Amino acid sequence: MDLGVITEMANQVTVSTSDHASVSSISLFSALLCGCIVIGHLLEENRWVNESITALLIGLVTGVVILLTTKGKSSHILVFSEDLFFIYLLPPIIFNAGFQVKKKQFFRNFMTITLFGAVGTLISFSIISFGAIILLKNGRSLTDIGDYLATGAIFAATDSVCTLQVLNQDETPLLYSLVFGEGVVNDATSVVLFNAIQNFDLVHIDGTIALKFFGNFLYLFLASTVLGVATGLLSAFVIKKLYFGRHSTDREVSLMMLMAYLSYLLAELFYLSGILTVFFCGIVMSHYTWHNVTESSRITTKHTFATLSFIAEIFIFLYVGMDALDIDKWRFISDSPGKSIGISSILLGLVMVGRAAFVFPLSFLSNLSKKFSHEKIEFKQQVTIWWAGLMRGAVSMALAYNQFTSAGHTELPANAIMITSTITVVLFSTSVFGLLTKPLVFLLLPHKGLKQQMSSIDDPTSPKSFLAALLGSVHGSEIEEPTSIPRPSSLRLLVTSPTRAVHYYWRKFDDAVMRPMFGGRGFVPFIPGSPTEEPSVHPF
Amino acid sequence: MDLGVITEMANQVTVSTSDHASVSSISLFSALLCGCIVIGHLLEENRWVNESITALLIGLVTGVVILLTTKGKSSHILVFSEDLFFIYLLPPIIFNAGFQVKKKQFFRNFMTITLFGAVGTLISFSIISFGAIILLKNGRSLTDIGDYLATGAIFAATDSVCTLQVLNQDETPLLYSLVFGEGVVNDATSVVLFNAIQNFDLVHIDGTIALKFFGNFLYLFLASTVLGVATGLLSAFVIKKLYFGRHSTDREVSLMMLMAYLSYLLAELFYLSGILTVFFCGIVMSHYTWHNVTESSRITTKHTFATLSFIAEIFIFLYVGMDALDIDKWRFISDSPGKSIGISSILLGLVMVGRAAFVFPLSFLSNLSKKFSHEKIEFKQQVTIWWAGLMRGAVSMALAYNQFTSAGHTELPANAIMITSTITVVLFSTSVFGLLTKPLVFLLLPHKGLKQQMSSIDDPTSPKSFLAALLGSVHGSEIEEPTSIPRPSSLRLLVTSPTRAVHYYWRKFDDAVMRPMFGGRGFVPFIPGSPTEEPSVHPF
Repeated sequence: MDLGVITEMANQVTVSTSDHASVSSISLFSALLCGCIVIGHLLEENRWVNESITALLIGLVTGVVILLTTKGKSSHILVFSEDLFFIYLLPPIIFNAGFQVKKKQFFRNFMTITLFGAVGTLISFSIISFGAIILLKNGRSLTDIGDYLATGAIFAATDSVCTLQVLNQDETPLLYSLVFGEGVVNDATSVVLFNAIQNFDLVHIDGTIALKFFGNFLYLFLASTVLGVATGLLSAFVIKKLYFGRHSTDREVSLMMLMAYLSYLLAELFYLSGILTVFFCGIVMSHYTWHNVTESSRITTKHTFATLSFIAEIFIFLYVGMDALDIDKWRFISDSPGKSIGISSILLGLVMVGRAAFVFPLSFLSNLSKKFSHEKIEFKQQVTIWWAGLMRGAVSMALAYNQFTSAGHTELPANAIMITSTITVVLFSTSVFGLLTKPLVFLLLPHKGLKQQMSSIDDPTSPKSFLAALLGSVHGSEIEEPTSIPRPSSLRLLVTSPTRAVHYYWRKFDDAVMRPMFGGRGFVPFIPGSPTEEPSVHPF
Repeated sequence: MDLGVITEMANQVTVSTSDHASVSSISLFSALLCGCIVIGHLLEENRWVNESITALLIGLVTGVVILLTTKGKSSHILVFSEDLFFIYLLPPIIFNAGFQVKKKQFFRNFMTITLFGAVGTLISFSIISFGAIILLKNGRSLTDIGDYLATGAIFAATDSVCTLQVLNQDETPLLYSLVFGEGVVNDATSVVLFNAIQNFDLVHIDGTIALKFFGNFLYLFLASTVLGVATGLLSAFVIKKLYFGRHSTDREVSLMMLMAYLSYLLAELFYLSGILTVFFCGIVMSHYTWHNVTESSRITTKHTFATLSFIAEIFIFLYVGMDALDIDKWRFISDSPGKSIGISSILLGLVMVGRAAFVFPLSFLSNLSKKFSHEKIEFKQQVTIWWAGLMRGAVSMALAYNQFTSAGHTELPANAIMITSTITVVLFSTSVFGLLTKPLVFLLLPHKGLKQQMSSIDDPTSPKSFLAALLGSVHGSEIEEPTSIPRPSSLRLLVTSPTRAVHYYWRKFDDAVMRPMFGGRGFVPFIPGSPTEEPSVHPF
């Protein structure tokens, strides 16, 4: 019996236990992900390219190859699925961002971030919507007023994932926290906007509806935050109480992963903003829970969350790249390619104008409230903020699919054109703006990066700075902000410097109530096998 | 505007971006998984209960609650999906088993493991099939001879996951490697058997078909192993070559995870045994790749793989527990409950007889080849091996669904009874046999555990013993087997002690060719930030 027969036989027998088509597409994606990681690593020294653009290009190339091998029949293996994106890929990315964010920097700029994310998004949405009504109405590309408003909401959604890729937290901490924080708040605003458009009667806007709208936003923002913080605190409490004395790394890591994911799912279940929830859950977990687990669990969680987020990010770009070449979508516009290019250009222009219309005025407003010049947002920084938030990504794609298709397909030419225009804007902004952001930051803020005053005190409670905290002397890393500022009377502090006062009282409350209850740096009892006792002995 | 209106509004707006039903079922599963972990931790000191039984019970209770709240309409949230099980849950479990297995112990018993897994499974399959034909034919519960043979294949499939839960690698290393290794080889046999039943004309068995069958098994076994080893070596090579000098933990961990998963997917794609492939990939990765990465990556991968496997295991048991109460399956047999109990008892008896029929004779054969008494499998150990492999789990369930239903549903009463009988056998064997295994091991092998001669030299290249290797002196952990045995002439060694000779030559080959090429302990060039240079300085 020769080998040929055996091979043939093996091919004959059916794998009875799984769907073969899904196995082959998952295999392809895994192989492409490996390729992206290796190529991204090889191009790491290159200033222009980053992993997301590599993934986007590899996705496009793969799409072309599939298109050619299937002879134009199909170019996509997995249809773009909102579920896949919102339930599986987005949560690890946003959670990791919260987990690794420099908390001091984030909370110090909290007011500015909220201003940008909420008011800014509304301004951007209004400009894009009205611009679309004026500029696109002649082409009769859309029929319904709701479609124009939805277009505004779709293109007002900044892509947090792209921001994470092009801005570096260590080099430009202020910009990173502003642009990324804005992206997170922006999501809550977008969800409210998008739901409002699909549910409210927006043709007759009056005071009541505006008030309702505002109330809805406030409810969404507060409820999402509270849910995230509560889940994070629960995880800290459970791990602190249960695991004292007999730690198990696998259980700790499992609990942290599952509870973080649960916070996102619960938020979605209660129609809140999962992104806001999981972001705050990440912040709370890095502040409390992370300090309650063993040394091994700390290293594992820090790197596992980063790895999962990394894989999810590359997957999204690969996916968007491959999906962009789906032949069905382009069939409708093949007879009028000029129209599609025109609409894409108009939308791209509106995105740029809409963003400019809030970044510069709101930065001016924000600067008015700051006393010291080094706290103000300089003009060059404003340009960078404007530029870095221009990218539109998978969130815009998902919203566009939701508005203009049913189950991924559309038969209306007007809707098909909106889908292809969205894809064009996403591809163009991600690749071109993405490519140019790193050089732009380098050009506009040449030697600011590592010297920026606001980042001079590294946040010692963040997992990212664990290396520094461990290598530095224990007392050196224990320097805390409140001790370094002169202490005026509390009331005067509150009036002259409200942010600092809030921070000061928060520290007091944290040390007196929160940390003894939920654990945290310096408030965890002796754990066998943990280096809190002797930093020089490592238990692994 | 009061809060009630806001809440109502928030409930009215539809989450437009994801399927709400799937979000709620994933939320429920995440919450239950958290519950299982916490309860499992609280019951850790208990000798009888383990996490899988806790998960099974919680799953059953949840099933009852859902059954009552939906008023008997439905008890399952997710229908048992073979895809979910074979594509997502099984790979991390088996990979982790290979990654953490004591390699010396495993390869020293390789012949016995293969004997048990291949010949033993065939014996068990024959006995169960013929027993089913004789004992069940009167009840006319099955019509086709293929169904009887499929029943044999279904109940000959040992559950590796259960074994991992009840046997402890550190306490009973010989038993663990025998029973678990058997389970891995058993899978390849089961796949061949099951495919053969569905494709070959087994009514007319003759020499040619038997030879074909044997050839098919050999092809499957070798091809799967080669694929797993090749993927593992590729990962080691890529990481060694690319990452020299500038390591990135996230990329390393991502590559290891993705390539391990890819090996499983490729095996499934080429109709091989994914379980065998990913198992050997895990072994190779722990021997080579794991030594090429940074200290942080080592800790992260070790714990991440263990955590993912842990979550997947609990998920499976939770899932089986919840699925068992699906009301549709039990509707058919409600008029003849006695018959279902009878069939379940017969099948359970056949499983016990079928396993006894090969464990004791094959152990006798295996003992004949061993020279030293401490290498032989004692009778008490044989009883434990027999007992520990009696559990039937998710693999049996998946095969039964595949044979007796189409897309999870069946209209034939005979098939429905086979499904419910399989569930009964799985639930009974997992809970009762699972509950009794720990006490049985304690009773039969009371003080053997930590003293067993074969485990006296801990495998220093396994991730599990990393702690020991790091805490012990470098030279202490470098003791290698070949130096401790007297060296007779190579030819004499090969004749008198073939296993040791193979091991000796493998070590020579490994040191001379493999490790310089693929890396591995002691053969990795200096990596900045890696503790191989100075074990006392840690880079994190």
